[in-house]
Amino acid sequence: MNVDLLIHSAAQVVTCASPPGPKRRETMTEVGLIVDGAVAIADGEVVAVGPTADLRADFTARQTINASRKVICPGFVDPHTHVVYTGDRVAEFEMRLKGASYTEIMASGGGIVNTTRAVRAASVDQLVAETRPRLEAMLALGTTTVEIKTGYGLDPKNELKLLQAIEELARTFPADLVPTFLGAHAIPPEYNNRPDDYTDLVVEEMLPQVANWFKNSQLAIHNSQLFCDVFCEQNAFNLDQSRRVLQAGRALGLAPKIHADEFTSLGGVTLAVELNAASADHLDVTPPAEQARLADSNTIGVVLPAVNVNLGSTHFADARALIDAGVALALATDINPGSAPCPSMPLVMAIACRYQKLLPPEALNASTINAAHAIGLGHRLGSLEIGKQADLLIVGAPDYRHLAYQFGHNLVERVVKRGKFV
Amino acid sequence: MNVDLLIHSAAQVVTCASPPGPKRRETMTEVGLIVDGAVAIADGEVVAVGPTADLRADFTARQTINASRKVICPGFVDPHTHVVYTGDRVAEFEMRLKGASYTEIMASGGGIVNTTRAVRAASVDQLVAETRPRLEAMLALGTTTVEIKTGYGLDPKNELKLLQAIEELARTFPADLVPTFLGAHAIPPEYNNRPDDYTDLVVEEMLPQVANWFKNSQLAIHNSQLFCDVFCEQNAFNLDQSRRVLQAGRALGLAPKIHADEFTSLGGVTLAVELNAASADHLDVTPPAEQARLADSNTIGVVLPAVNVNLGSTHFADARALIDAGVALALATDINPGSAPCPSMPLVMAIACRYQKLLPPEALNASTINAAHAIGLGHRLGSLEIGKQADLLIVGAPDYRHLAYQFGHNLVERVVKRGKFV
Repeated sequence: MNVDLLIHSAAQVVTCASPPGPKRRETMTEVGLIVDGAVAIADGEVVAVGPTADLRADFTARQTINASRKVICPGFVDPHTHVVYTGDRVAEFEMRLKGASYTEIMASGGGIVNTTRAVRAASVDQLVAETRPRLEAMLALGTTTVEIKTGYGLDPKNELKLLQAIEELARTFPADLVPTFLGAHAIPPEYNNRPDDYTDLVVEEMLPQVANWFKNSQLAIHNSQLFCDVFCEQNAFNLDQSRRVLQAGRALGLAPKIHADEFTSLGGVTLAVELNAASADHLDVTPPAEQARLADSNTIGVVLPAVNVNLGSTHFADARALIDAGVALALATDINPGSAPCPSMPLVMAIACRYQKLLPPEALNASTINAAHAIGLGHRLGSLEIGKQADLLIVGAPDYRHLAYQFGHNLVERVVKRGKFV
Repeated sequence: MNVDLLIHSAAQVVTCASPPGPKRRETMTEVGLIVDGAVAIADGEVVAVGPTADLRADFTARQTINASRKVICPGFVDPHTHVVYTGDRVAEFEMRLKGASYTEIMASGGGIVNTTRAVRAASVDQLVAETRPRLEAMLALGTTTVEIKTGYGLDPKNELKLLQAIEELARTFPADLVPTFLGAHAIPPEYNNRPDDYTDLVVEEMLPQVANWFKNSQLAIHNSQLFCDVFCEQNAFNLDQSRRVLQAGRALGLAPKIHADEFTSLGGVTLAVELNAASADHLDVTPPAEQARLADSNTIGVVLPAVNVNLGSTHFADARALIDAGVALALATDINPGSAPCPSMPLVMAIACRYQKLLPPEALNASTINAAHAIGLGHRLGSLEIGKQADLLIVGAPDYRHLAYQFGHNLVERVVKRGKFV
């Protein structure tokens, strides 16, 4: 059979293949390792994965690549980002290093509201232009699919503007971009001390407008689902407000996601399970009973250790306990200008191994197949299996564990997206 | 005046200039910031640094580069590495994540001795071939000068082989490479339980051979000094053995350096001060009295936080206290296959800011001018001043603080070494 692309003689192919559904516990350490492996690709899809000898016998190819001494693995999926923004928060970073408290930073105009001010003043074109280099950096680091949240607009017009920017990027950038509406990210200044009123605005005005806009958007045509997320946290949205937002979104066809237990445990994980959310994210202070509830659900647990590092914290989500409890775990960067100016999934893997006691195969599965499930795309992305989209990386190391073992530079040498080198 | 290269219109030029000698305390936060700055270069040296308007009036150039919206800073100096080696320790990395103790890893053939076995079996050519990509990664990340230690040979022949590999790399690689003899890195297996006998070997055979070899080496012609280092630590070399090694080296013209206080405080800092060492490195557990002694000396304190991160440790050298005490502080990667598989000075800066409470300007000075002083090259490297070697970076950000604020990818867009783009 003739194919478009045959990559062969890889020291290792790691498929991250799994039965339908995400990986849990024991299968988290199985990466589908093929020594001296090859991948055949046609029409943007994986046609075959196996030993080089077999694939070289079965296939001829328009383009053949020798990947000897390299690793082939699935492209990374980053299932939690706030990458569409403008402005930076470097001054706030220095203030915090000098010992300024969160309150002092807020008082000086810092925090999410700082970015909201900049985003409201920006055009769609400006947002697109400033985000593109960040997505390029992520793609070069191996991230071929990116979930992107709104949440810096915080009013109907500006939340839609962020979705328009995501749509425009999705139309022109090679990675798959998956949109999430996060109108309930923070209480905007004009609703200070009126969180219920702002929740009304989200539920009654923003969500219907967003859902309606999405129906006719290029994003929907690109086969993405739209998610609805909420920041369930003290000084953001309480459990009742969070439930209202997610239920209203679900009634409009938006799949729930939740920021839960970053600083305070408010019951967000239980809510996620109750609503069959796609994911519950952060989980820094999730108590064992809720870990167990998450393990018994279809909801993916997403941990974001670059945030802890960025804050200079020595406390991390107990990802080891989550996996051991049976939670289907994924990793994400949370890239954003305040709490995680970090685009790198490999660095997140490296941190997760060292500070959350994941093993290298678990970190890889958490960054590929389970991350794809966290954004509803596990059937199509996240592993190298016949019929799946051909998103893969050629890594300049002879063992996939180098992705987590080495840190601070980029081992990804080439990126294939939908069967094509980018 | 006509020059070879004029880089102008940079959002910021940060010179890291200082009076003779390294920076301490207050001047650690001064980076010599020039807004809308330019640098003029001729014959590989800095001819002028200043406002763009001034330099464009004063100079014409064979090549002119517009660096608008970028930062120009000195090339990074990495003053503590073990980058010449062969083999990896990825299996040991996974063992440690699974909870194996240091003793279990040693018993399974892990640790420094693992790399010693691989290095002894390798040829100079093989060492050069395997090290070159690591140096290339470091150069791409902005490191234009690299100190490199021996210490994986641990016998006369193989320690010389490592120096020969450094010499060959120095002859063919664009970065300045500065050699350090670290025969006293560990007790080799054949001297098990006989540290005094091995110290005799280092002092009586290896040091004279090494010093003699160095006199005729290309490294000496390249204007490098040769340093002599020792790992002063429990289960390595005690204080008396360390003193013997460094004194013997100094008598042969080798400037002392020391690995001190990584796990145990044995008085290594006091020894460093007594011997007027170029640097004392690690300093994870240095008591306040010794911090004060270091502050009153000419010895640079070098901290290596990538090691702490690699071990998943929440304890770091108290770099804030060291600076506040008046120590001239530098940062380094310590890149090596066991405790720091990390080539990135910017990531080290990012970690130092977050976990050691350095401010961004301190982290930059610690990675440039003070790092140059830690390897005896502060007069020639580490800052952008008239007459100094033109080693500089063009950084893809409008504010130098982004080097520490963002983490996980490479902001360095172009590297100039001795006045030439590499």
